[in-house]
Formats: sequence, structure tokens, C-alpha cells
Amino acid sequence: MLTMQDALLALTRYWTERGAMVVQPFNTEVGAGTLNPATVLRVLGPEPWRVAYVEPSVRPDDARYGENPNRLQTHTQFQVVLKPDPGNPQELYLGSLAALGIDIHAHDVRFVEDNWASPALGAWGLGWEVWLDGLEITQFTYFQQAGGQTLDPVSVEITYGIERIMMARQGVAHFKDIAYAPGISYGEAFGQSEYEMSRFYLDDADVETQRRLFEDYAAEARRLLDARLPVPAHAHVLKCSHTFNVLDARGAVSTTERAKAFARMRGLAREVAGLWSERRAELGHPLGTAELPAVAAAPAEFPAVEGAHPLLFEIGTEELPPHEVTRTASAVERAVTEKLAATRLGHGAVRVRATPRRVVVLVDGVEPVEPDAERTVRGPRASAAFDADGNPTKAAAGFARGQGVDPADLRRVDVDGVEYVGITRTDLGRGAVEVLSGVLGEVVAELRADKNMRWNDPKLSFTRPVRWLLALLGDTPVPVAAGALVSGRTTRVHRTAAEPVVEVASAADYPGFLAGHGITVDQDARRALVLASAGELAATVGGAVSADESALVDEITNLVEQPNALLGSFDPAYLDLPAEILTTVMRKHQRYLPVRDADGRLLPHFVAVANGDCDHDTVRAGNEAVLRARYEDAGFFWRADLATPPATMKEGIAKLAFEERLGSVAQRAARIGAAAVEFGGLSDSDTPVLRRAAELAKFDLGSQMVIELTSLAGTMAREYARRAGEPEEVAQALYDMELPRSGGGAVPSTVPGALLALADRFDLLAGLFAVGAKPTGSSDPFGLRRAGAGVVAILRAFPELRALTVSRGLSTAAEHVRAQGIEVRQEVLDEVAEFVRRRYEQLLLDAGHPHEQVAAVLVLADAPALADETLAELANRVTDPGFATLVAALQRVRRIVPADTAPTYDPAALVEPAEAALHQAFDKARAATTPGLAGFVPAAEVLADPVNTFFDEILVMAEDPTVRTARLGLLAAIRDWAAPVLDWQGLGTSLEKKN
Amino acid sequence: MLTMQDALLALTRYWTERGAMVVQPFNTEVGAGTLNPATVLRVLGPEPWRVAYVEPSVRPDDARYGENPNRLQTHTQFQVVLKPDPGNPQELYLGSLAALGIDIHAHDVRFVEDNWASPALGAWGLGWEVWLDGLEITQFTYFQQAGGQTLDPVSVEITYGIERIMMARQGVAHFKDIAYAPGISYGEAFGQSEYEMSRFYLDDADVETQRRLFEDYAAEARRLLDARLPVPAHAHVLKCSHTFNVLDARGAVSTTERAKAFARMRGLAREVAGLWSERRAELGHPLGTAELPAVAAAPAEFPAVEGAHPLLFEIGTEELPPHEVTRTASAVERAVTEKLAATRLGHGAVRVRATPRRVVVLVDGVEPVEPDAERTVRGPRASAAFDADGNPTKAAAGFARGQGVDPADLRRVDVDGVEYVGITRTDLGRGAVEVLSGVLGEVVAELRADKNMRWNDPKLSFTRPVRWLLALLGDTPVPVAAGALVSGRTTRVHRTAAEPVVEVASAADYPGFLAGHGITVDQDARRALVLASAGELAATVGGAVSADESALVDEITNLVEQPNALLGSFDPAYLDLPAEILTTVMRKHQRYLPVRDADGRLLPHFVAVANGDCDHDTVRAGNEAVLRARYEDAGFFWRADLATPPATMKEGIAKLAFEERLGSVAQRAARIGAAAVEFGGLSDSDTPVLRRAAELAKFDLGSQMVIELTSLAGTMAREYARRAGEPEEVAQALYDMELPRSGGGAVPSTVPGALLALADRFDLLAGLFAVGAKPTGSSDPFGLRRAGAGVVAILRAFPELRALTVSRGLSTAAEHVRAQGIEVRQEVLDEVAEFVRRRYEQLLLDAGHPHEQVAAVLVLADAPALADETLAELANRVTDPGFATLVAALQRVRRIVPADTAPTYDPAALVEPAEAALHQAFDKARAATTPGLAGFVPAAEVLADPVNTFFDEILVMAEDPTVRTARLGLLAAIRDWAAPVLDWQGLGTSLEKKN
Repeated sequence: MLTMQDALLALTRYWTERGAMVVQPFNTEVGAGTLNPATVLRVLGPEPWRVAYVEPSVRPDDARYGENPNRLQTHTQFQVVLKPDPGNPQELYLGSLAALGIDIHAHDVRFVEDNWASPALGAWGLGWEVWLDGLEITQFTYFQQAGGQTLDPVSVEITYGIERIMMARQGVAHFKDIAYAPGISYGEAFGQSEYEMSRFYLDDADVETQRRLFEDYAAEARRLLDARLPVPAHAHVLKCSHTFNVLDARGAVSTTERAKAFARMRGLAREVAGLWSERRAELGHPLGTAELPAVAAAPAEFPAVEGAHPLLFEIGTEELPPHEVTRTASAVERAVTEKLAATRLGHGAVRVRATPRRVVVLVDGVEPVEPDAERTVRGPRASAAFDADGNPTKAAAGFARGQGVDPADLRRVDVDGVEYVGITRTDLGRGAVEVLSGVLGEVVAELRADKNMRWNDPKLSFTRPVRWLLALLGDTPVPVAAGALVSGRTTRVHRTAAEPVVEVASAADYPGFLAGHGITVDQDARRALVLASAGELAATVGGAVSADESALVDEITNLVEQPNALLGSFDPAYLDLPAEILTTVMRKHQRYLPVRDADGRLLPHFVAVANGDCDHDTVRAGNEAVLRARYEDAGFFWRADLATPPATMKEGIAKLAFEERLGSVAQRAARIGAAAVEFGGLSDSDTPVLRRAAELAKFDLGSQMVIELTSLAGTMAREYARRAGEPEEVAQALYDMELPRSGGGAVPSTVPGALLALADRFDLLAGLFAVGAKPTGSSDPFGLRRAGAGVVAILRAFPELRALTVSRGLSTAAEHVRAQGIEVRQEVLDEVAEFVRRRYEQLLLDAGHPHEQVAAVLVLADAPALADETLAELANRVTDPGFATLVAALQRVRRIVPADTAPTYDPAALVEPAEAALHQAFDKARAATTPGLAGFVPAAEVLADPVNTFFDEILVMAEDPTVRTARLGLLAAIRDWAAPVLDWQGLGTSLEKKN
Repeated sequence: MLTMQDALLALTRYWTERGAMVVQPFNTEVGAGTLNPATVLRVLGPEPWRVAYVEPSVRPDDARYGENPNRLQTHTQFQVVLKPDPGNPQELYLGSLAALGIDIHAHDVRFVEDNWASPALGAWGLGWEVWLDGLEITQFTYFQQAGGQTLDPVSVEITYGIERIMMARQGVAHFKDIAYAPGISYGEAFGQSEYEMSRFYLDDADVETQRRLFEDYAAEARRLLDARLPVPAHAHVLKCSHTFNVLDARGAVSTTERAKAFARMRGLAREVAGLWSERRAELGHPLGTAELPAVAAAPAEFPAVEGAHPLLFEIGTEELPPHEVTRTASAVERAVTEKLAATRLGHGAVRVRATPRRVVVLVDGVEPVEPDAERTVRGPRASAAFDADGNPTKAAAGFARGQGVDPADLRRVDVDGVEYVGITRTDLGRGAVEVLSGVLGEVVAELRADKNMRWNDPKLSFTRPVRWLLALLGDTPVPVAAGALVSGRTTRVHRTAAEPVVEVASAADYPGFLAGHGITVDQDARRALVLASAGELAATVGGAVSADESALVDEITNLVEQPNALLGSFDPAYLDLPAEILTTVMRKHQRYLPVRDADGRLLPHFVAVANGDCDHDTVRAGNEAVLRARYEDAGFFWRADLATPPATMKEGIAKLAFEERLGSVAQRAARIGAAAVEFGGLSDSDTPVLRRAAELAKFDLGSQMVIELTSLAGTMAREYARRAGEPEEVAQALYDMELPRSGGGAVPSTVPGALLALADRFDLLAGLFAVGAKPTGSSDPFGLRRAGAGVVAILRAFPELRALTVSRGLSTAAEHVRAQGIEVRQEVLDEVAEFVRRRYEQLLLDAGHPHEQVAAVLVLADAPALADETLAELANRVTDPGFATLVAALQRVRRIVPADTAPTYDPAALVEPAEAALHQAFDKARAATTPGLAGFVPAAEVLADPVNTFFDEILVMAEDPTVRTARLGLLAAIRDWAAPVLDWQGLGTSLEKKN
């Protein structure tokens, strides 16, 4: 039996044997190994550093008196920092698992996207959580920034969660049962401390004392920075941070205090980092400067090939985030296609296949060389090229000299009907290998993702490191250089293969070659495999995998190179928990496919999909244990929550910060509730429902379950409200208010729920835009795009709420934000309205509506339900010639009338028949119209002819100002009458073309 | 090359393989590994515990900006706790050195007495510092008390000083040069931190902030104790302690604050310990209860032997403190002799030999059995034993029955002239083995030293553990049981021997047997070996070892079982330092014998005495390196001190606490100076000398040198004063004031020095007795016995200071103590005077003066010089019959006169001739006496006859009160006139007997 102390020693030994220095845990409380100066300071600057250490990490908030089997106020991290990235950190890491006695051939070890950011430290990185049979055992991060500084070189940070690893290795279900040392359990060694420190953090730490300590530490850190002593300053920032955590665990931090404290600590931490870097530079970087691999030389020689051959180009990466697998495949396909198109190289179809570890470009029948091409170089105009004697002018002679030809060789060329002199050059076609070398090198250099990172490459930047390139034209290697990489003829297969690096003989049937090594490179094939095997396994227990799991299946497909589905089970007793909890845990945390019976009821089984070969029993047992632990946790939260009435739970959300200036979640819930009630438009029976639901709004954010599983917000509100005896309508409204959860997701089913959901999103939009937190580029941390789309989706789904326009909703929400002393200018609300309109526009376009029709109804986007109706009506009428005539007439009116013309006129001034007729027709039409396009068109169609006649016969710009004013007023009145119905101009000339 | 991190891993591995659990360093700053709860709390109570860990130990006071090669604010301890004592902890420890690549056969590894006490923790233990070639590398302690609790079982605490070990192993002279990890030096890894943390501790920590932190931590600890949470309470006590250390390093702790802070921390620490023990008991001692070896069964069978044989009895111990080797040898010899004498077993000479690891009892010619003995058992009086018929009475019958004999067997026995009935019993002699078994078992059980400890034995207690017993009578094993030990026939020789445990065939020539294993068991022989080999080595460099080193040679003799002297050298450049520094370092720290040339000048060599075989070059190099480091340190202090004027240095002593209530050393120096000046009795030329010396008194206690080497106080004062340009007389007075340093040591050579030295000691005695800190039993932490003896020695050496009596000196000193607001009652001063008198008495008796003469002059002890003269005179006169007559007469006077009789009388009332004659003789004698016994006797002798005549002829108790009063008054006057000269009664009848 490997005890926990054995494990720590084994890791220490393993990493020291690989050049890591060992340091001791820091001697003040830290929340994570990252905070030890051996990481957070040493990753700064150019000096190399390779370190390994144990760090007992103290998180007062995780204190549970030792009662929760998986949660401790002090847990043990084993931290490794490799600076610079050694180029093979994943392989080194896997070796360390072997040192822990973990057979990576039997187990399913995976690198699952998990990025890390600590705004408080001005730090972030990209990487993974490493899964061992579904259990997160390690955080693996390429550290990109720290203390606000971009890290160069990048460090690899590997953080092992030792208790979890030990629980898995030893097969125990409670941390106290870990065999810590021979004959001594973890509980025996540390149980009393766990209990007592929990008591201190949760119950007994004196709040006033801790507040004073926080101030004193912060002030000391400040003074030490001024004294240019980053090391003790850092220690005091850590003391600050720990004290803050103690206060937080004691529930003593208000939202305002939290924001202030964070800002203060962040500022200090950044200064520490800056000062450390300065001091190291002053000391001349005692450890030297880390060296990265050199940029590879551009290929200089290109073998010739004969005949057409298929191209294989593989970009080998570390595990890509699932969504980047798909995105990158498309991007690379586009890039290769376009870049090849810019050459003269003949080729067949371009296909790109991708797995988490490779993007494979396959091009059929690449010709061996480009054909030669002629090219005309234009000189001066022919008229200026020859003098009266037909001799070349100075200009022509100069041009010829510049081109290195004899003036006599100039010939005349015609460009758009103008005659110039010029020369014709022949561009010789390059060999295919040379062309491909350039194109493929560029493709790699230009790889970009949503979030990009650096590793040990001097040039490249991508979502994860690119580690190898394989390029073959038929069986001829194509030399490709990108950053430090040069292509070869080897690929990497499963890391657990007997031979993980294999040579590839030829580009022919590379998917087949990979299949031979247990890799399905085609995404669709992998997806089909996942579905088929999961379905088969589910069927063995009389169940099936729901078609609703499509997004999860997509994700799974991109988490593995070779799906290896296995059926796991869990104790049916857990089925007593609400199904949403069980499935949320399965999907979000574990990427397990739930198994349901024919009636859609959850069965006590799941399908996990491992990557490639493994020992099924081992991996199944591991995954089952993980799920059991998670369900135990969930059951723990569930029971604890059920013991807490909703009203009490709601008190808890006052402690949860929402945003620095917008205050706590409780404040936000209060704003939402008030706005929803003010929106009105309810039936008598719905009114009390809304009022009660508004009172309870977001109460479940104070539940342990939602704190753990945030995606269950609303779901838990409904569950807990029901069980607390609230009316079903109230429970449903609380559920509804969190809908839709995503673009295209279900919308609220009740009016009270819809009003709350709208108030929620209006508050979010108005509030965050007001404080300047609107989305930029790919950054939308508060999900405002989703909120905007949600507003649209709800309003479209509730035509009966037409009176609640976007602008009214925003104004109401803004009032409540202003009541908190925050300025919300009208321009900001206009900006939000426009932002929402853009979401609506996008939705319509995505749904395939013609651009012109969308443009025409966007003017109605303030009431999307109305806009929808209008659009539908429009779609009906576009083929109607009468309608087209009307549109043309109305467009004509609008074109003629200056924008600032008032829509009033004296009918007495309209004396010409055509103008009088128009006036009368307009009067009639105006009286006949009912709301909406459908009510407008039949009435308005009668105007088409009078309008046209008017324009044929009447000079609008009469000399008599009274007449002119009346004529313009009439037209303006028509314009303004028609304007709210549709953006007639927006339709353009599309109808004319159609008819 | 073993790097430091290799070493830490090797130790971790070594101890985990021996069942130790590994824990992490504590996550708040600690000054030593002991303070980690894994030691200081876990040693409490009955639970077993075996732990090993690294502890970076923070000592702000040791901060040196990384400049001092041997001193760091954070040094690395490796801590091991074995609870209970496994019985062989030294052997386990030596094994760990092998794990560090230290060949204990080549090196000289020794266990040198070093006891540990932390009053602040209420903790103490006995043990050693472990020397590797003279370098202290480990503290090895049997932990006896912690938190004021007696530890049961006892824990073994082993603390390795890693930086020192690494410097020695790697042969580097500065900690920064230690190879910490492959390619990274200690300085590279931690240099910046060492500098910056030094800056923080010495210069930049904000004093007010740290004071507040101290208060806050202490208050939090208090609250946590009240909440019954010892673990977080302990953490806060540690935070308190560290903060105190920071304040101290910043020089911000006044004496009063220090005392208060210590009292507070001590109180908290004790409560933590108490509460921890309670909590563990409440938890049911989760780790179980440690088991100690069982008490050995008393021997039941004893082999018979034939003929007389020698006895060998060896008590095998771990390394005894040197002075205990000698003391124990005597005690055991006495015990064996007395106990054998209480038996009837015939035997020859009893000799005891001892080394640090064994006490060997050798008894010649032990008879095989005790002779039988007759014994009379007395019954009732004969008169009551038989009735008138001569038949036994009931009483006699009862007695006979009780004794199991027939009444007819009773016979008459005479006891002190009274006739009883009784019986005679024959006690059969026991066999020698049985007798010896009992005697020797008792000897072991009754072993006691000045300071005793417990180890894993259930019964025994001694200065160090007793680990084995060897008992042979001739070649017959004698079974001896004591505690858990039973004797065998094996002994242990050098731990590095190929066979460290060897069988002993016979008691014959055991010293020869041991010599065969390289052990010289006879102390005198060892001492001779030390002297001879050291002398020879010194001679090779033209030097010698001074005869003054006798005490050191004694100590060395008892530090080794086999002296193995080797000559080391040091850089002659160090000879520029004062010789006292060099020799003090050699003697006190290293137990090296200095080598001097014929003129007594120090040579750059030394003799170190290793234990048994070793590699001379290795051991020499090690010892030389240690000395070099120590001399480097000393040179560093020397140069730093020389840059500081004495007056500035003196300011520093205000920071040094002397005693809680008596204040700082500066306050004490001020009291001493003032008192010395008030004593007066100086020549005109000495007056300014004393005044200046008084101003500077004890200034050198503020020097770095004396802080490091306290025994150089005075020596350094003289050196630094000279070099600062003070007059030589002042420098000498400052030197003198610290004399005598020990009983029999040199006394001051100048009057100003003597006055300062006296003032010093009077202050010490008056002050400490006043605050209740007088010596008790063997505890005399302030050296008051030595101070009392010093007073006597100085006053004896300076008869010209006779006016300064002990009582006057104490009164003057007391005035200055009272000026600090401390009550000093006259009874206390009387008690001190009596205490000093006892020291004087002891000195005289030790010098061989007859008890009666000493008793007679003790009345003069207030002026020891006068008493000395009186004693000398007395010694001259004891054989003088006239003197004897005088003494008898004066004794007779004193016997007659009631003590409260006033010494006044009306001569006119004395009318009888004998009384008148006495009056006249007395008048005459009184007029003729000069001071001292020598001046008294010639004048007083004329009184002898009149006194005797007076008593013969006069009835003192006349009926006439006037007459009676006059007669008594005359006698009382004579009594009181004679009283100050001598305690005549004290002489008793000794003179009569003599003559």
C-alpha cells in the first residue's frame, strides 16, 4: 500500500531526478502552492527555475469540521514549476504518475481543458485538469501572466491534489481513511487539527481582531514595498490574503469590503511582482537567462516529385479544448484552401480532420509543379511613351531600364480601354514541395484560437502548444518550418502505445494508418462511434442515451482520439435526489452520458467515454467512485439545504458579491423583483404569484447546492420552494426566471416567470453597461450577449407582453440601478437597446430570414413579438405585386420629403386634384388601418396609385411657400404614418426584383 | 556531491523506513522544529508518536543580511521525534549519519553533554550535542517536561542543523556556497530572501505594528483557549512568539516588556499544553498508549560457585556528562562497599572504574557463600515466662508457638542485664550469586545524579539512560535485574567496532579485556594518556600544553573511552586576536588544548582528542574547519566591536534583561557603580579610576564578542577599554570587577577593581534574595553561591578594605535596589550575611582549619580579613596554656551571665576584694587591648586569675539587688568586651583537651 507520505516522497524523488529543486512549504498560511514565492515570484523574469514542493494549502472557506469526506480546510498540494517549458511537460507528468504507482496503460488519463485565472494576482494561464478515470487529480497550466506581467519564458505549473489521488489510489471514501503513514491514518494524524481549525475559521476567529490584522498586514506590505523589499512584502500580502479568507469564512465580509480588499491586495500583489522583477534585474539575474529553442531555419532545398500525389499535413498539438478542435479544423481547411488558391498549384479536394491532439490536412492529387504563368507589367501610357518620332520617351526608357529590358521590347497593352506600354513576364512554376512548404508554414504560424498562449516556442502562439509537424507529399517529406518546429515524417499516437512515436511511410490513407494505431481521426466517425457504443451499452440495462445530449456528445467526441465507452452504475438510492442534480453532475463535471428508460426516467447508470485502450474494470471502478463522491457531496448539500427555509437561504445571498459597484446578489435580486412587479401586465391570479416569487428571487443562490453547481440555479429554487410549501406557480416562476439558459434554450413557461427573467436580464444589461462592463471582443464575463438574446427570446415568446418594450424594460431597470447611486445615462440605455437589437438581428439572420426583410423589421425590435409578426406578414406579401407597388410608393414619399419636415399640413392649401385626391385617400387609409403590417397593408394599398399620380402631376416644390409647405406636410404625414409599421427603405429594391 | 536537498531526502527516507511519519513544516513562522505542534504538543500524553520533518527555523535575531558565513535568519532543521524512546536512539541516529554519507568509522562522532531547557515553554530535557569532528551537528535530547507537564513516556528529540552538516560535508566556508540542488547554490536559491528578511527584521519591520500584532495574537490565543481549541491557540502563541522575536531584533523590547511578554507567552503555552492533554484524553487517545518494556522479573535461581572469584559488574550507559563519570564512580564504589558490608559475604578490594559509557565495579576474591550466622530472638521476660512450677506461662507458650518451636526449647538470654526467654536461630549463609544479585540490583536502582532523567525504562532514573548490565562472578553470570534490564554476559565496545557487542568470558582482567577492544577503563590511565599524547604532539611544533589546563584535561578524559589525540593548526593570522579569545573558543566550545611556546605565547596549533580509532586527516581537517569558522566569527565580532566606542556599547546593555524585577543589565551596572563609589576607602589616585570604571561598568556585555562568549566578560572590557584609549588602571579595574570567576580563581589586583567586584556581588546577592530568587537545592541559576564565595575571597585578599564589612556592603547595595522600588527587608540582608558566612565557613573547613577554630572566628565573618587574622592568631595560641586559661575564664563568664544582662555596673557597689580586683583588672585590660586577637590576648590574659578568684569567692546572685546588678554588670561588660574578638564559646573545650 502506497501511503500518502510515500506518495509525497515518490513525487519529490521523481522531480528532483528531473532537475527540480525542492523547497519547503511557505511559512505563512497560503491558499495554494502557486502563492509560495517559489512559484508566483519565480515565474517572473527571464531566469530559469525548476522546483517541486509540498504545500499544505489553507482554505478557511472549505472548513467542514472534518465531516465532509472530500473537503478540508487544509489540503495538500504537490507543486511543480518548470521554467521554461521543457517541451515535453505532459510526458514528464505522465512519468510522475508511474512513480505514484499509477499504471497509465490500465487507467484512463486525460487532459481536459481547464483554464486558470486569478484576477487578484493579475495572473492567468491555459491548460487542463488531468483526469484519472474521471477524477481530477492535477491542475496543469501554462502560466502566461503573473502580477500583471506577461511571462517570458512561460512556466509550466503542475499542481497535484494529493488527498484526492490518495483516496483514489487507496480506494477510500473519506479523507480521514487515507493511510497517511504505516499504521497511521490521515484522520489520526490531522483529524483534530482539521476540526479545531474549522472551528477557528468558521466560528471562533475574532472578527474585529482579524480586521485589525488585515489592516496591519496591508500597511506593513505597503511600507516594505516602499523600502523596495519584495520578499517580505510578498509574505505580508499572503498574510493579508489569508486573513481576508478567515474573515470571509466567518461571514464577515460585506460586498463593499470585499471589493475594496481585493483591489488593495491586487494592487499590492502587482507591485510586489514589479518590484521583484526590478530587483532581479538589478541583481543581474543571478540564475541566468532561460534559453528557448531557436527559430528553425527556413527550408532551403525542396525535393522534386513526379506525378500527382496526395498531401498529408499533420499539426500535432497537446490536448485542444473541445470547441477548438472543431473550430481549428474549419479554420485550417479555409486557410489551406485559400492559400493554395493563391498559388498555381493544381490539387484536388482539401479535407481537414481533427482530434484533440492533431489537425490533419489531406489534399488529393497535388500536381508536382505549378504551371508557368505570364504576367504583364504596365508602364507609362502609350501616348506618353513615344515621342513624335516613335522613339521611346524618357518615361518609357526609364520604365524599361527599371524592368531590365530593352525599350525596344516594350509592347502596347490595353487596360480598361486605355493603352499603355508594358512588358510580359513569365513566372516559372515552382515545385509542389516548395509551394506546400511555404503554404503550410504560414498555416501553422497563423494558427489562432479564441484564447491563445505561448509555450517554449520562440514564435508560435495558439490555444495549446503545437509539438510536431508531419508533412508528406506521397512519400516525399515536405520540409515545413514554423517557430522552432520543423516537420518530419513521424507522428505521435497514444502516449500509452508501446511505440508512441511512429514513422509514416506515405500520405496515402493516413486515416487508415491512424486507425491502425487506434485513432479515429474523422470527427464524424468518432461521434458516430460514441453514439453507437453508448447506445449499445445503455441498451444492456434497458435504457438509452437521450438525443438531448447532442452537445455533450460533441464535446466527448473532441475529448478523445478513440472513444472507448464503458457503462458505469451508481447506487439507485441516489435516484431520490432530483434528476437535474444527478444529470448536471454527470454532464458538467464528468462528461458522462445519463442513461434513461423508455419513459425518460433516469436509470442508475451512466456511460463514460475513455480514450483508447484501458482496463475497463479499473476505469469503471474509478469513474464510479468519482460519481459516488460527487453524489455524496450533492446529497450532503441537498439535505443541508432542505433543512434551511428559503427565506433564511435568501439572507445568505447578501454575502455574495455580484459586482463591485452593483453590490451584492441580494441587492440585484431586490432590483429584479421590484422591476418585475412594475412591469405589470399580469392577470389577477398571477399577481400574487409574481409578488411572492419576487420576494424569493434568487434565494437558491444561497443554497449549498447552487454554490457548488451554479448551473442548477432556478432548478434548485423550484425544488426547494416546492418542498418548503410554496405554491407550485411560485416555484415555477422561480425556475422560469433563470430561462433561457443558453441561446435557443427553453424560455419561461409562465408570465410571472417571464417577467422575472426579463427583469433579471434588463438589470444585468442596464447595470453592467452603466458601470462600463460591457462585452469587448471575446470577453463577456457576465454573459451580456446571452442576456440580450434572452430578452429577445422571452419577448418573442410572450406576445401578450408587447407593452413591455426593450426600452421600457431597460428604463425601469435603470431606475433601480440609479436608486443605488449609480449614474445611468440615457445614451447608455440607447446603447443597450441597440445591443439587444443586434442580438435580435443575428437571431433572425441565423434563422435564414432574408437580409432585406430583417432590415425592414429591425425598426420594430423594441418589441420583438411585433417585429416577428411583421416579418411573418412581410414574408407572406413579398410576392404580392400590389404590396411591391405600395412599398415603392412609400419609399418614393420618403425619398422626396426632407427628414426634418413636420407631418402637418393645411388641407385647404391642397387645391390641385392629384393632391386633394391623395389627401382624401390618406384620410381614408389612416382611418382604416389596424395595428401591425397585416392591418396596415390592406388599408394602405389604396394609396399607391394616388401617390404615384401625385408625383406625376404635382410639383412638390411649388413656388408658393404655403402650397409647398402643405404638399410636403401631406407627404411627411404619410411617411410618419407608415414608418412605425416597417422600415420601408430597409426593404430596398428587393421586392421589385422579385416581382 | 550530496546536495542539501539530497540530504533532506536521505534523512526523510531513513527515518520513514524506521517508522517515522513525515509531516510538513509549520505554516506560521517558528524559531525551531520543537515548536511545531508535531513535537511540542505530540510529546504530551501517553500516545506513541514517531515523526520526522524539515523545519525552516526563523530567528530574526540571527539576521545578518546574509553576510555572516555561519548565521542566518532562517536555517533549516531536520527534526525527529521518537516517542517512546525506542531504547536504541543513538544507534538509530548514527545510522542516519551513514544515510548522509558520513562514514562514522573515519570521523570522530561524539555525544557531548548538552542539556536543554526552555522556561518559556515550561520544557526541559537532558542529552547531548552531537559532534562530528568537533562540529556540533545535532541536538539530541530526552524530552522530560513540556508545557510544565512531566512527560510519560519520554520522547527522544533529534534536531539536525542541516546547513552546518552540509558545509562540513561539502567543505565550504560560507552557507551561500552550499550546493543546494544540482547547479544551484544555497545563495542562489535563498540569498535574496536572506538579505531582504534580514532587512525586515533588523531595520524595516514597523515597531508599532508589530506591537499591535503581538497583542492581537495573544488575545486571540486567549480566546481560543477559552473555546477549548488548543490547536489554533498554539498557532497563535507561535505567532506571538515570532512577533516578539521581530520586536526584539528591532531592538524595541524594554526589559519590562520582555518580562511581561515572556510571562504571558509562558502562561499561554502552558495552558495550551494542558488543554491539548485534556482534549486528547477526551478523544480517548486516538493513537493508543505507548508501551514501555516491562519491569524485569526478579531473578529466582542463582548458580552456586566454588571458591573465591573476582566480581565484574558493568553498568552500561549512554554518554555520561564528564563530571558525572567521576561522581558516579565514587558513588557506586561507596554503594557497593556499604551494601556488601551489610552482608556477610567475604570479599577483597572494591574498585570502580568509569568511562562515559560504563561504570565498572571490580571486586577481588568474593567468597562463594556467606558464612552462617546465629541470631537470638527475644521472647517475654524470664520472670514472666515460667509459672511457679517452672512451666511455661501462656506468654512463653505463645512466643514459642509464634516462633514454631517447642516451649521446651526456649532458653534464657540476657539483654542489658535483664533476663528474657528466647531462641537462637541460625541464618544460613546465602550463595555469593544471590547476595550479589540483590546488592547490584539495588545499586542500579539507586543510581542518582545531580540531574536525573527518565527514558524508556519503567523504573530507573539517572543522568543518562542505562542500557545494559554485565555481571560475572569469575565466569559465572550473576543475574541482576533493575527496571526493565537484566544482566547478561555481553558488553558493548566502540559503536564503530566491527562487532560492537561482545561476549565476556570471565571477570578476570576485565580492564585488559576492554583494552583489547580499544577502551581504557581506568580514568587515571586515560588522563595520563591524554596528557602524554597531547604533550608529544605539542612538542612536535616546539610547544607544550600548559599545566593550567588541568580542568579541561579532566573533562576530556571523561569525554572519551579511548583518547586519540591529534594536532591541528590554524592560520597564524588569528594570533592577532587577543589570546583569551582564542583559548576561550578552544576550551569552552571545542575542548581543544591550546599549545604554547616556552614563553607561554600561544602557537597556531591545538590538540583535539578524538574517541577511539578514526581517520586522522579527516578528523583533523574537520576540527580545523570548525575552529576556523569560530575564529572567523570571533574576528568578525572583534572588528565590529572595535568600531564601537565603549560608551556606545554600554548603551546596548539597556536592552539586555537581567532579571524581571531587577531590570536591565544597565540598571544593574548603574547600581554597582554607585555602590562601589560609596564604599570609598580609596587613595586619591584611585578615586578617578574607580569613577571612570564605574561609568563604564559592564559595557562589554554590549559587545558582540561577549554576547557570543560570555566568559570573556571583563577580559573584553579590558581589551576594548585599552584600545579605546582609557587609562590602563581603568581597563584593569573593569577586568578585575569580574573576578574571581570561580571558587579559588584569581581575585582583583587593584582596589578600584575589588570595590567594583564587591559591589557587583553585593548587588547580586541583595537584589536576588530580595526578590526571592535565592538558591535552592542544586538550583542556583544566578550563581549566588559563587558570588558569596567571591565576596569572601575579595575581602580576604584586601585587608585594607576592612571597613567594608559584608553587612555594610549589603546595606549599601540594598539602598540602590530599594531605589528601584523593590522592598529589601533587613531580615533578608541578615539572611544574605548568614549565607555569605556559610560560604566563608566552608572555605575555611575545606582549607583544613579545625572545626572549633572555624566556629570561633565565624563571628567575625562580617570582616573576613579580620577573621583570617584572628584565625591565624588562634592557631598560634591554641597550644598556649595561658590562652587556654583565658578562654576557660571567658567561657565561664559567659555561661554565668544571663544573655540579656546589660554590660553596665556601678563600681561603687563592688565592695568585696575579689570583685573589686576583677573590676580593676578589667579596667586595666580594657585600656591595654588593641584590635584583633593578637592585641586582645596579651592584655586580657591578666584577667584569667581575677575571674577565677571572683567565681571562687563571690556569690554573684547576691540578695541585695544593687550588689547583684553590679556583679552581673561587671561580668557582662567583660563578656561584651571579649565577644567581638572571638566566639569564645565556639572554641568549646577543645583547648582544654589539647593542653
